[in-house]
Amino acid sequence: MKIGILGAAGYTAGELLRLLINHPQAEIVFANSESNAGNPVTDVHEGLIGDTDMRFTSEMPFSEVDVVFFCFGHGKSEAFLKEHAIPSDVRIIDLAQDFRIKSPGNDYVYGLPEINRSLIAHARHVANPGCFATCIQLALLPAAAMGLLTSDISVNAITGSTGAGQKPSSTTHFSWRADNMSIYKPFSHQHVPEIRQSLTQVQGSLPCDIDFIPYRGNFARGIFATSVVKTDATLDDITAAYKDFYKDAPFTHYCDNAIDMKQVVNTNKCLVHCDKFGNKLLVTSCIDNLLKGAVGQAVQNMNIMFGLDERCGLALKASAF
Amino acid sequence: MKIGILGAAGYTAGELLRLLINHPQAEIVFANSESNAGNPVTDVHEGLIGDTDMRFTSEMPFSEVDVVFFCFGHGKSEAFLKEHAIPSDVRIIDLAQDFRIKSPGNDYVYGLPEINRSLIAHARHVANPGCFATCIQLALLPAAAMGLLTSDISVNAITGSTGAGQKPSSTTHFSWRADNMSIYKPFSHQHVPEIRQSLTQVQGSLPCDIDFIPYRGNFARGIFATSVVKTDATLDDITAAYKDFYKDAPFTHYCDNAIDMKQVVNTNKCLVHCDKFGNKLLVTSCIDNLLKGAVGQAVQNMNIMFGLDERCGLALKASAF
Amino acid sequence: MKIGILGAAGYTAGELLRLLINHPQAEIVFANSESNAGNPVTDVHEGLIGDTDMRFTSEMPFSEVDVVFFCFGHGKSEAFLKEHAIPSDVRIIDLAQDFRIKSPGNDYVYGLPEINRSLIAHARHVANPGCFATCIQLALLPAAAMGLLTSDISVNAITGSTGAGQKPSSTTHFSWRADNMSIYKPFSHQHVPEIRQSLTQVQGSLPCDIDFIPYRGNFARGIFATSVVKTDATLDDITAAYKDFYKDAPFTHYCDNAIDMKQVVNTNKCLVHCDKFGNKLLVTSCIDNLLKGAVGQAVQNMNIMFGLDERCGLALKASAF
Amino acid sequence: MKIGILGAAGYTAGELLRLLINHPQAEIVFANSESNAGNPVTDVHEGLIGDTDMRFTSEMPFSEVDVVFFCFGHGKSEAFLKEHAIPSDVRIIDLAQDFRIKSPGNDYVYGLPEINRSLIAHARHVANPGCFATCIQLALLPAAAMGLLTSDISVNAITGSTGAGQKPSSTTHFSWRADNMSIYKPFSHQHVPEIRQSLTQVQGSLPCDIDFIPYRGNFARGIFATSVVKTDATLDDITAAYKDFYKDAPFTHYCDNAIDMKQVVNTNKCLVHCDKFGNKLLVTSCIDNLLKGAVGQAVQNMNIMFGLDERCGLALKASAF
Repeated sequence: MKIGILGAAGYTAGELLRLLINHPQAEIVFANSESNAGNPVTDVHEGLIGDTDMRFTSEMPFSEVDVVFFCFGHGKSEAFLKEHAIPSDVRIIDLAQDFRIKSPGNDYVYGLPEINRSLIAHARHVANPGCFATCIQLALLPAAAMGLLTSDISVNAITGSTGAGQKPSSTTHFSWRADNMSIYKPFSHQHVPEIRQSLTQVQGSLPCDIDFIPYRGNFARGIFATSVVKTDATLDDITAAYKDFYKDAPFTHYCDNAIDMKQVVNTNKCLVHCDKFGNKLLVTSCIDNLLKGAVGQAVQNMNIMFGLDERCGLALKASAF
Repeated sequence: MKIGILGAAGYTAGELLRLLINHPQAEIVFANSESNAGNPVTDVHEGLIGDTDMRFTSEMPFSEVDVVFFCFGHGKSEAFLKEHAIPSDVRIIDLAQDFRIKSPGNDYVYGLPEINRSLIAHARHVANPGCFATCIQLALLPAAAMGLLTSDISVNAITGSTGAGQKPSSTTHFSWRADNMSIYKPFSHQHVPEIRQSLTQVQGSLPCDIDFIPYRGNFARGIFATSVVKTDATLDDITAAYKDFYKDAPFTHYCDNAIDMKQVVNTNKCLVHCDKFGNKLLVTSCIDNLLKGAVGQAVQNMNIMFGLDERCGLALKASAF
Repeated sequence: MKIGILGAAGYTAGELLRLLINHPQAEIVFANSESNAGNPVTDVHEGLIGDTDMRFTSEMPFSEVDVVFFCFGHGKSEAFLKEHAIPSDVRIIDLAQDFRIKSPGNDYVYGLPEINRSLIAHARHVANPGCFATCIQLALLPAAAMGLLTSDISVNAITGSTGAGQKPSSTTHFSWRADNMSIYKPFSHQHVPEIRQSLTQVQGSLPCDIDFIPYRGNFARGIFATSVVKTDATLDDITAAYKDFYKDAPFTHYCDNAIDMKQVVNTNKCLVHCDKFGNKLLVTSCIDNLLKGAVGQAVQNMNIMFGLDERCGLALKASAF
Repeated sequence: MKIGILGAAGYTAGELLRLLINHPQAEIVFANSESNAGNPVTDVHEGLIGDTDMRFTSEMPFSEVDVVFFCFGHGKSEAFLKEHAIPSDVRIIDLAQDFRIKSPGNDYVYGLPEINRSLIAHARHVANPGCFATCIQLALLPAAAMGLLTSDISVNAITGSTGAGQKPSSTTHFSWRADNMSIYKPFSHQHVPEIRQSLTQVQGSLPCDIDFIPYRGNFARGIFATSVVKTDATLDDITAAYKDFYKDAPFTHYCDNAIDMKQVVNTNKCLVHCDKFGNKLLVTSCIDNLLKGAVGQAVQNMNIMFGLDERCGLALKASAF
């Protein structure tokens, strides 16, 4: 597959390059960044020295590629498409949130393979899910399939600093963030609508709130989430349903034991664990925000779109430490 | 005041020593540790070099002191008292959880000054609150005083590694805990009963669950908590009530702005902030687990018991970074 | 003492405020910051909520103060003085490097009490030493007093991110700096000249290089340094000389045991330890870069200049964890 | 290739399993651990959930494998061989230091491909280099090839906590190590002899000291080293020699720009950069201590021993963050 990357100097594009450079079926035709055009990608992106001599381009030869990854900031994908023509046979995988919510005229398939695998396989355009959205949906979808989501759901999730992007800011300043803890956008995070859309798709309706509190983590990579659902279903039934729901998912696994986040850091995996206390179901889940929460899932979607093994290029060694 | 310390080689005792060494009214008569008897306290406790030549003792001359701090592990205070006679005029401040829950024959006052200041002032024996318990109670007590706690409350709180004590273990191993995230004892943490006791004391009854999920933090010091309460009360009324509740508290402050944990690390302060989203009240709160969550509050209680200024020896410079 | 602070919104000024707010002899008359004038200092500086209602001012009423702290970036102190008249009886303590190096017309005393205590006591103007410079000088001064510094000295020192200031940058971005290690300005750091000046003052001459490699640390506070000196002097003689050199220093202590940095974090202390391997003397030393390396030493100098106990306001609880 | 692993429950074995599970030519026949026999490897090793159902064995069927990795603690490999017979056609790669130093009767080849590639290709037994030793040798070997190592060399290197192994201890306790800095075994680290052996092999003799100070890093993975060599050679000549020395090395790269450690974390790479200040050559180098510093290099050696592409199974995505 021949690949083009737009917005190639950002964090997600860097991680995408680190993946695709080792993907046996991928050939990167261009990595576009106006501001860095002509410079080696190793000048911007960590971890690529010795692996590639590629340089950022100002060109975007769409006719030479099979698929384009949009690694723009949110809102810029839609703007870009209004100003540029991309041949209709070139697939697009958009990492931003511009096309995630269904609307008339939006032909993007929501790229969560665990619920949309066959739609993705036939899609021309895929909207890649958000990082928090991926971790939280994968915690709740099997419960939705059981129809359990009828009371307000408490969700607390903590994210690594890479979720805040490459641009330095006060809340990503090391001196402030190290050993600190805080929240942002409680009850109003932009990923809630896409979570609700998927849960509604699976459960039919969603007559409850998702009370989501996001935390800024004192680490660079990963998301760890807890979700609490009020239900009378038994843990045995729930566990069986979760295992069944993910039995064909190559990267999402139900765990019988408690989980910790570093199990998945630097992999495309999502781990899910359930426990029951009285009438409360507690679901813990975790992902790597840059991989299953962003470009790992994008490559997984690419593999599905082009009929490759879903795992191709994604057998990643966990960092573990 | 003449002071004795039992269990003087543990984490909490180390922090107590760091406090009392600079307390203008305190004289440490003995710091007892059988296993370290004769050795300088600086061999065990960080941060005291140049400040003291004190050595651990095997003696416990209770008749020479006004107050004894019990810095044992949980369960050992009660056992110790069965085997040792302490003169009845010597005050005891117990850092463990042995006497926190009221029961017949238990004459220990629960040492949370924000609700028990006058009881503490006249107490011979004080049971110092738990770290999580302090942070969560201070978030919820004003709401309890308003009678708002009628539906199940979601509490998520994250603690520093010092909360797990001095003994090395798999979950305090640096290689595992660094950059990791996990939970433990969800819905079953041992601090919930003392939280319920205080909230019941203030509200009269507590017809709801405290759904508490504790997280292991990737930092050494501090606790940060979010608590969600379902209520129709307005944010204005709530804010006014919180400010009024803590108007005389020297260390607990209501903040109009969002808070972050490092505001309080290395201080005896607790910060509390409220926000409202629909019918959900979100309270964030934070403390230093070793100070307001342990020995800082113990010294605050000592000050109250002996008629000193509550702030005496507790005007600590925040580390801030 | 009545105190004015210039550049009051920066990191060092924040730490100075945290110190002076608890200093029993200090009254802060103004904290000047044009860009923040009128706002509470708690909006900018962590750790002060509940301790002060002070606001930044645009005024600088020099006639109302006894001493002014210059907390500007390097190069701005000298520029400021050209544009503003400060009454001659107002003492100045400059935190920047503008006046550290002796030159004709420069009446600033280099504010390292361990070698200049009596000069500081009579100074009108004090140039406060740099953070690396403080840690490295205190490691080498007793050796200089012995005349041992005749061969090139290898110095490696690692600093916390607060040393890089408040402005976000690529090397203080959490995502980059967390778990990373790198060096900057090897063999060319701006603190070497002031180190050489002090060592020359004590030894008479300095016929060797100071080969200094600074490292960016993966922590917010602290400096830890190793210095290697070639010498035939015995460890016993060296140790005796170090202990004697610092016998009157209230904050600098020779340690018989190996040291670690957190012994001094959040204190004004410097710890020094020596060991000998063949003909190589290894000196380890550590300080808190914001305290003994900046404003702690500045307050120490203020105490000396005004005849107060050198320790006044500086009996700080080590964070230890 | 059929593979056996001894000491399979330790840190290095965990990382080896994470590598081999994705190695296209590797089949793990047994992972021996007496104390964990029968348990899933995922119970002990992070990052393998969903990748393998393998269990630890108490068996060691040497006749069924082509190569055995010894992942014992230091000193146990030699003891093990005295008590167990391993068929002579089974290759051994020993991760410990037992056979690294040449001696009569020791037929182990020192497994540093950059200097011993052809010897490794024909070896039955390979002694895998130490982590610090790898990083420091790769910094100095090209200079040794130029004959520049004639004056004492200052080496400072900092290592992640995984270098201290899996067993919890006071210096790997999170509460102590987080945000701390310290040194250990200065001038006496056990890796110096193997460094001297390799440098002597390349330069012919080594008439100088290696003054090596190891630091405990506040991170889990990685080693970063600085080495200072006194020499009159020009930087141009040195740079050319370094590039030439590593021109065929697939994992060791000379960089024209300054390096930082996270460039190599989670990869098998070593980066080297040189700079010159007066007559001092400064070489910076970095590796991942568990990969190029341990099992990554072991797999590289296995690839060489069995005639595979040296990179096979080692095209790892850098974690970068």
